Amino acid sequence: MVVYLDHAATTPLRPEARDAWLAAQEVVGNASSVHGAGQAARRLLEDARDAVALSLGCEPIEVVFTSGGTEAINLAVKGLWLAGKEGAPIVLPDGEHHATMDAVAWLASRWHAAVRPVPLDGLGRIDADAFAAALPGAGLATALVANNEVGTRNDPTTLAAAARDAGVPLHLDAVAALGSVPLDFAGWRGAGASAGGLAALSVSGHKVGAPVGTGALVVSRHAQLTPLAHGGGQQRGLRAGTPDVAGAAAFAAALAAAETEREVESARQEALRDRLVSGIRSIVPSAVMLGDPRDRLPGNVHVLFPGTIGETLLFLFDTAGIAVSTGSACQAGVTEPSHVVLALGRDADDARAVLRLTLGRTSTVDDVDAFLAALPEVHRRGLAARAARLGRP
Amino acid sequence: MVVYLDHAATTPLRPEARDAWLAAQEVVGNASSVHGAGQAARRLLEDARDAVALSLGCEPIEVVFTSGGTEAINLAVKGLWLAGKEGAPIVLPDGEHHATMDAVAWLASRWHAAVRPVPLDGLGRIDADAFAAALPGAGLATALVANNEVGTRNDPTTLAAAARDAGVPLHLDAVAALGSVPLDFAGWRGAGASAGGLAALSVSGHKVGAPVGTGALVVSRHAQLTPLAHGGGQQRGLRAGTPDVAGAAAFAAALAAAETEREVESARQEALRDRLVSGIRSIVPSAVMLGDPRDRLPGNVHVLFPGTIGETLLFLFDTAGIAVSTGSACQAGVTEPSHVVLALGRDADDARAVLRLTLGRTSTVDDVDAFLAALPEVHRRGLAARAARLGRP
Repeated sequence: MVVYLDHAATTPLRPEARDAWLAAQEVVGNASSVHGAGQAARRLLEDARDAVALSLGCEPIEVVFTSGGTEAINLAVKGLWLAGKEGAPIVLPDGEHHATMDAVAWLASRWHAAVRPVPLDGLGRIDADAFAAALPGAGLATALVANNEVGTRNDPTTLAAAARDAGVPLHLDAVAALGSVPLDFAGWRGAGASAGGLAALSVSGHKVGAPVGTGALVVSRHAQLTPLAHGGGQQRGLRAGTPDVAGAAAFAAALAAAETEREVESARQEALRDRLVSGIRSIVPSAVMLGDPRDRLPGNVHVLFPGTIGETLLFLFDTAGIAVSTGSACQAGVTEPSHVVLALGRDADDARAVLRLTLGRTSTVDDVDAFLAALPEVHRRGLAARAARLGRP
Repeated sequence: MVVYLDHAATTPLRPEARDAWLAAQEVVGNASSVHGAGQAARRLLEDARDAVALSLGCEPIEVVFTSGGTEAINLAVKGLWLAGKEGAPIVLPDGEHHATMDAVAWLASRWHAAVRPVPLDGLGRIDADAFAAALPGAGLATALVANNEVGTRNDPTTLAAAARDAGVPLHLDAVAALGSVPLDFAGWRGAGASAGGLAALSVSGHKVGAPVGTGALVVSRHAQLTPLAHGGGQQRGLRAGTPDVAGAAAFAAALAAAETEREVESARQEALRDRLVSGIRSIVPSAVMLGDPRDRLPGNVHVLFPGTIGETLLFLFDTAGIAVSTGSACQAGVTEPSHVVLALGRDADDARAVLRLTLGRTSTVDDVDAFLAALPEVHRRGLAARAARLGRP
């Protein structure tokens, strides 16, 4: 049995989501069809939309179901920018997810968008003053609600207010935050029909126990957005394609379950995390916990083991039956220094010497203790492997 | 119990697909993660890719999993065109699916692509000579393997050869054909590294009993394609996002089952279709069967009832517990004349007076007979409603 400490990469399907998916498959009909079979599917879809809207603090009509977080982020970043003033700069904090960075890079290379970077502080938080200073005249700003690698939370209220004051549409990436941080789209956006301020918020289903391939982009009813997928005009014309009713129902069920247990589960994960952190500190006194020690995701431990290579540690833990990550799963397998850790002001050696341990709904004290039991030997061998690679005796 | 004659809109989930989906959900791991859990998921994904490639006649590396047909079509049309010479014209036959038409319209409006239309003949077939004549200097051509409304098949070999001779990348939309028409990507493409000729082929899972939200774009290893979704570099960098392993496994299972039973099932559906057609002809002698009477999808009947409005008939059948369509589900609910029927040379009245009846794996003689039993009364009331709307006594 694998000890799974990589819940941020993906987390097991919840029974509620599986049951909702199976039940929805019994309703045969395309939700765009006008006959009774289609309308039964449509009702399931709209029930799911209502439930997701409730969890995200938006109106149902603002929920656009997508095939996951990457599509939602691409739709937000490209869609908002392409619908705005051509050539306007993009405000891009350091340490964003690769989906955001790569979508912006495409706009920059293909459409000549200028990019205005914003630094993080040493704990991984977006510098709010620098963010506000970068906004005037921009066509789009984007920001993480919580960083998917180091777990640091940002303050959406402050970022959204700055964007609103500057009249700049803001995309918030809430993929890593979903299920752990209360999301309040309408509250963060504020009242009124302004085109500036919070315009879109992206979430992914499989981070909260829904099937992979589900997710949503909240698009403010006041935002202008160019679709990525054109076609039958589904979902306000913002995302064509036969709606995945079963996926939406499963996502809604998982999200509702996650929201219901959020406070209790967050406290439980924080206790496990504290056990993990204090265990690591006592076994490897040189270990450095990265990210904000207080304002962070409850299940995230991001730890720097000086003198090691994270990928070596990952393989050694894997051999011991323990699944951990060096960072975002999307970039795993590539031995590159983490761009997030570099953005904290660390050097490239440090940015390669990190592990991300993430807890989830199914995590137990036994998982934590198994990790801690394996750590001394893994760390010793990790130090030796790194030293050998450097040619030291 | 609904009599469901709208299998082209969507068709029930196959048990094989449901079982594959549930089994894959037991493997918890992100297929991009390097640890054992991730690699177990990766193996499932690659097994699915191998199986889909086998069914489509391409190499596994050429299969890019998508969230469905609309995403696949958008990725092909926009991706191939944006990767080619800027501003090059697009060869667009009449009667294509809305996803294709709307993607091309976006390229035309936003990127100033010129569009070269190609007429259909009276049976719905793309005029091959006009298609070839439109190709020289084009940046992209697109064509349906089989028309999703009237069911007429085109000859992919001829279209692909013409595109190859002209050095123009061709996208084939095989969404409606999948499961009914043998697909042979490599054979249609031919050998060699030419950038022209068959470059991409789009398919959707839920048309063959896989879950909605699954599908693929075959992208030739020699084609150049700009992704729609940027991010973690998954799937050759052509489609970022955490791969939906369970969806891919379910799609592969459904497609394999469909291919295994294709010949037997096609013959069975053709027999049901013949019963349906001869029944309609004897009840409503004025009815006109549209599309090619021979070279067509086995489960498709597309029928014009002169003097009626298709949508009225649809509602009357729905009241009788029979689900039919006026055309593509994606446009259902909108009382517009079918652009496909107009392309056959019919007028707008005719193009509103059509029904599409599509059979599937679960269709029975009882379904056909239930439709025929309801037809006399529905047709009588449909004629009366249309006459009343025109103000006639």
